[in-house]
Amino acid sequence: MREFLLYSRVGATSPSFRNMIDAGRLDIVHQCAVMALFKSQAHRNDAKFHVILNGPPNPPVHIEIEGNELRDIRIDERSWEGVFRKVLGGKSHPGVTVSKESFQTVVKDANEAGANIFTLNKSGKKISTAELGDRPFFIIGDHVGLPKKDEVFALRYGETLSLGRQKYLAASCIDILNYSLDGLEAGHD
Amino acid sequence: MREFLLYSRVGATSPSFRNMIDAGRLDIVHQCAVMALFKSQAHRNDAKFHVILNGPPNPPVHIEIEGNELRDIRIDERSWEGVFRKVLGGKSHPGVTVSKESFQTVVKDANEAGANIFTLNKSGKKISTAELGDRPFFIIGDHVGLPKKDEVFALRYGETLSLGRQKYLAASCIDILNYSLDGLEAGHD
Repeated sequence: MREFLLYSRVGATSPSFRNMIDAGRLDIVHQCAVMALFKSQAHRNDAKFHVILNGPPNPPVHIEIEGNELRDIRIDERSWEGVFRKVLGGKSHPGVTVSKESFQTVVKDANEAGANIFTLNKSGKKISTAELGDRPFFIIGDHVGLPKKDEVFALRYGETLSLGRQKYLAASCIDILNYSLDGLEAGHD
Repeated sequence: MREFLLYSRVGATSPSFRNMIDAGRLDIVHQCAVMALFKSQAHRNDAKFHVILNGPPNPPVHIEIEGNELRDIRIDERSWEGVFRKVLGGKSHPGVTVSKESFQTVVKDANEAGANIFTLNKSGKKISTAELGDRPFFIIGDHVGLPKKDEVFALRYGETLSLGRQKYLAASCIDILNYSLDGLEAGHD
C-alpha cells in the first residue's frame, strides 16, 4: 500500500463553485488524484489518495479515494469536477470517503496504523537512498506549500525526502514517487 | 533542449467539439502538455511539446508549443480547452504554432535538425543506462498507442527506451522523462 496526502490550503469545501480554478485550485487536486491512482487503462489498486481541503466555507474536509474501489470516473478534469461537486454536496461515489478530519488527525492516525510518514523538501534525504518501507505515506503541499506548523507536526512522525533540486508541480511529485516505488518493487522481485 | 511528441490517433482537428473527452481525448493532450512544459510556478524554458492530431475532420494537425514562449495559460483543463479551440479555429496564441505537418515529417525534420529520436516500450533500453544526448526527442503514444508503421518509421532514426514494467499514462511517461533528464543534468553539474 502507498498513500499520498495533498494539503490544499484553499480547496473549496462546498459544491457551489464556479470552476475548478476558482474553487481554490481543485484543478491541482484533480491532477494529483489522477497521478496517484491511475496507470494506463488501469487503476493503481495499491494506492490511496487523500486531500485535506482547507478552503471556505466549511474546512477542513478530508476526502479519501481508494484506487481499488474507485469506479465510474475517467482521468479528465470534467469527470472529477462532477465527483467533487457530488461528494462535497453530501452524495456518495464508489471509492470516495468524505469526513471532517483535519490534516493533523489524518497524519496521526496513519502513523498509528503503521504507515511511514514522509514530507518533501529539496534539503531532504535523496529518494534513491531512503528506506521507504511497505507502507509509505507521502505528504505533498499544493502550489503554496505546507503550513510550517503542519510540517513540523508531520515531522514528529516522519522524515523529509528530496526529489532533487527542481521544484515540481504537486501532481509531478506524486507521479515521480509512484515511479520510484514501482522501480523499488521491481527490484525486489 | 528536450522535446516530446504525442501521437494522438483521434484528437480533434476542428474547434467545434463538445468537450475535451469527446474531442478525441484532448484531455490526454492537455495533461501531456502540462507535464512537458510546467514546473511549480514556472515553465520549463528548455522544453518543447508537439502533438500530432489525427482525428476528424482535417488531419493531420501538428501543434508545437514552446515552454519559453508560452503565455497566458494555466495548468487546468479549461484554460487549455480555450487555447485548443482558439488555435484549431485559426487564431494565434503566444508560444503555439500550428501546421499541417504529418507525424513522419515532424520526426524526419527533428532527426535532420540533430535531435536524438526515442520511442518507449517495455522491451527497450533502460532509461537509466541509455545515452540521451543534449537534444532528446521522445515520441509518446496516446491511450491506443503508436501505429505500427509510424513506430517502424521513427525507429529508422532512433531507438526504444523502457521506463520499466508498468504501463503508464502518456502524461506520466513525459513527467518521468523530464524527471530523469533533470537528474542527469544535475549529475553533470
